[in-house]
Amino acid sequence: MPATKQAECEAPKKAEKKPSKTAEADQKRKLEGLTEDSPMRLRMEAFNKKLQAEITSRIEQLDGEGKFKVDQWNRVEGGDGISMVLQDGKVFEKAGVGVSVVYGMLPPAAVAQMRAQHPNIATTKEAMPFFATGISCVMHPHNPNAPTVHFNYRYFELGSVDGGEPVSWWFGGGCDLTPAILYEEDAVHFHRVIKEACDKHDPRYYKDFKKWCDEYFYIPHRGERRGVGGIFFDDLDDKKPDELFAFVQTCGKAFLDQYVPIMERRRDMPFTEEDKLWQQLRRGRYVEFNLVYDRGTKFGLLTPGARIESILMTMPLTARWEYMHEPSLKAHGRLMEVLRTPKDWIPL
Amino acid sequence: MPATKQAECEAPKKAEKKPSKTAEADQKRKLEGLTEDSPMRLRMEAFNKKLQAEITSRIEQLDGEGKFKVDQWNRVEGGDGISMVLQDGKVFEKAGVGVSVVYGMLPPAAVAQMRAQHPNIATTKEAMPFFATGISCVMHPHNPNAPTVHFNYRYFELGSVDGGEPVSWWFGGGCDLTPAILYEEDAVHFHRVIKEACDKHDPRYYKDFKKWCDEYFYIPHRGERRGVGGIFFDDLDDKKPDELFAFVQTCGKAFLDQYVPIMERRRDMPFTEEDKLWQQLRRGRYVEFNLVYDRGTKFGLLTPGARIESILMTMPLTARWEYMHEPSLKAHGRLMEVLRTPKDWIPL
Repeated sequence: MPATKQAECEAPKKAEKKPSKTAEADQKRKLEGLTEDSPMRLRMEAFNKKLQAEITSRIEQLDGEGKFKVDQWNRVEGGDGISMVLQDGKVFEKAGVGVSVVYGMLPPAAVAQMRAQHPNIATTKEAMPFFATGISCVMHPHNPNAPTVHFNYRYFELGSVDGGEPVSWWFGGGCDLTPAILYEEDAVHFHRVIKEACDKHDPRYYKDFKKWCDEYFYIPHRGERRGVGGIFFDDLDDKKPDELFAFVQTCGKAFLDQYVPIMERRRDMPFTEEDKLWQQLRRGRYVEFNLVYDRGTKFGLLTPGARIESILMTMPLTARWEYMHEPSLKAHGRLMEVLRTPKDWIPL
Repeated sequence: MPATKQAECEAPKKAEKKPSKTAEADQKRKLEGLTEDSPMRLRMEAFNKKLQAEITSRIEQLDGEGKFKVDQWNRVEGGDGISMVLQDGKVFEKAGVGVSVVYGMLPPAAVAQMRAQHPNIATTKEAMPFFATGISCVMHPHNPNAPTVHFNYRYFELGSVDGGEPVSWWFGGGCDLTPAILYEEDAVHFHRVIKEACDKHDPRYYKDFKKWCDEYFYIPHRGERRGVGGIFFDDLDDKKPDELFAFVQTCGKAFLDQYVPIMERRRDMPFTEEDKLWQQLRRGRYVEFNLVYDRGTKFGLLTPGARIESILMTMPLTARWEYMHEPSLKAHGRLMEVLRTPKDWIPL
């Protein structure tokens, strides 16, 4: 079949995919320049992209050698994304920071599920336009004394078909720390910085979201949590959008303060072969949580045409599974205690 | 609390769990000795345990250094299991062969699901007794030229409440080969031996079960199969139990002939650092399939109180995830072609 003929045949299929009204209008708004009156989705997207640039720049500096590989992509239906991955650096085995912006249509079944948390969504038999933007980050250092870290902040909108005001919207996100070797002062520091961020916006936030985090990052088949926690929240829509956006921004901006001081004191610590082996086994648990329980990963794996490399960017470079392994060192055993029974690192 | 006091407190809880009528009767039958007239469940259990002993003995010999660690356990409700794992041997990174025997009660929802494949199961609102026994095996060699192998053969019975004849029963199982570097002759050999086993029992088996295997071991989010296939079958109840048992026995006994000749020509082959890295990435895909799609693993992870170390015995010792990795060597790329488009290794 000649090339032109093939292009003709494919044309109708491509024509089905086109940017939504909202996506097109947003494109214009971005060209005109954003203000405080711009739709929340555009302000959150801009915040995410700026935060990604700031974090990757600081992390490259911390690593000293590794550079982030940058992949950008565009969606025909509207939206784009930037995946930034640093691999096999001096300090980091793998560090990934991704931003995604998605304009799409949500099937009625998925809309119905969302109604449970957002009762203002009307019953419908038709697909509804949605918008989602998020920033997510996972960093796995080489040194087993240095903890793995993760954060994710996201904004979701269920749009109206005519491109007007959204029917429903909410924020979600959180951060958590996953050490292989427990240093209580690191856990305390990580929690203290995010508690201070939470306290600026609502005195209940830290207490509630710390508990939610301990529940979310639980691996039932192991009877243990993935790490020493942090905060987790979802479906947040009980304040004005601007107030919640301010909260999410404070959290996102707190990340480098949460993590960099810990990395600075751990990255060059001496370690034994036994420590490295233990870290590899803990990485195995990280893989188990991500592939079996993490909502974001599960959603991604089930989405046809999703960019799999961006979804699995969070996986460690290396992992290990040993049959019937028991921690042989006291230092390793101490971690297990707090993973089995979560601790209040700072007074609630 | 003194030890005796504690034992008293726990007693009522333990008393809830007791062997079913069938489990108790089977225990007596085993003591009296099995014959060809013994219930199928006991004959399949005995076959599995004998096969496990034969295979582990031959594999130890092949490894030359590593020894299988043996773990036995008993279930209060009836049943037992033997997990045998060889770790960090000379030839094998990890090799596990497990046998399990389970007498239990199946919730009505699970019974309803089985009715789809076995319409003779009556509608019920009560839990029904079931019996399951299976042998499963996964072997991951060190040398990237030597393929990972897996097989599993199992028998399931939905029992009557009074301990009489089973309401329904079936056999399932299969075997598949997962090379990191493709040697077509290995794939052809593996398939030829199992085709010969199938052909002894039914001329349609190999063709049907080869296709089923290619479908089952598919990783949708990667658009590739886990390996070069083999056979897969489930819910087999369309012949006399003795005929199907004979088929499953032939398959199980074929395993060493399928795998040992391949290992003998691959275990000492020279390989490069690039080959080893590639093997580690392929191991990552193995982990993805097992944790996200494998029915047995998923069922195990969702079963409260399941022995997690036995379920995850199938995991490789080491695995790796690289962002955006593309095979750099032609030899590695050739594997990807057959994983994306399964091949008929022998004429169907």
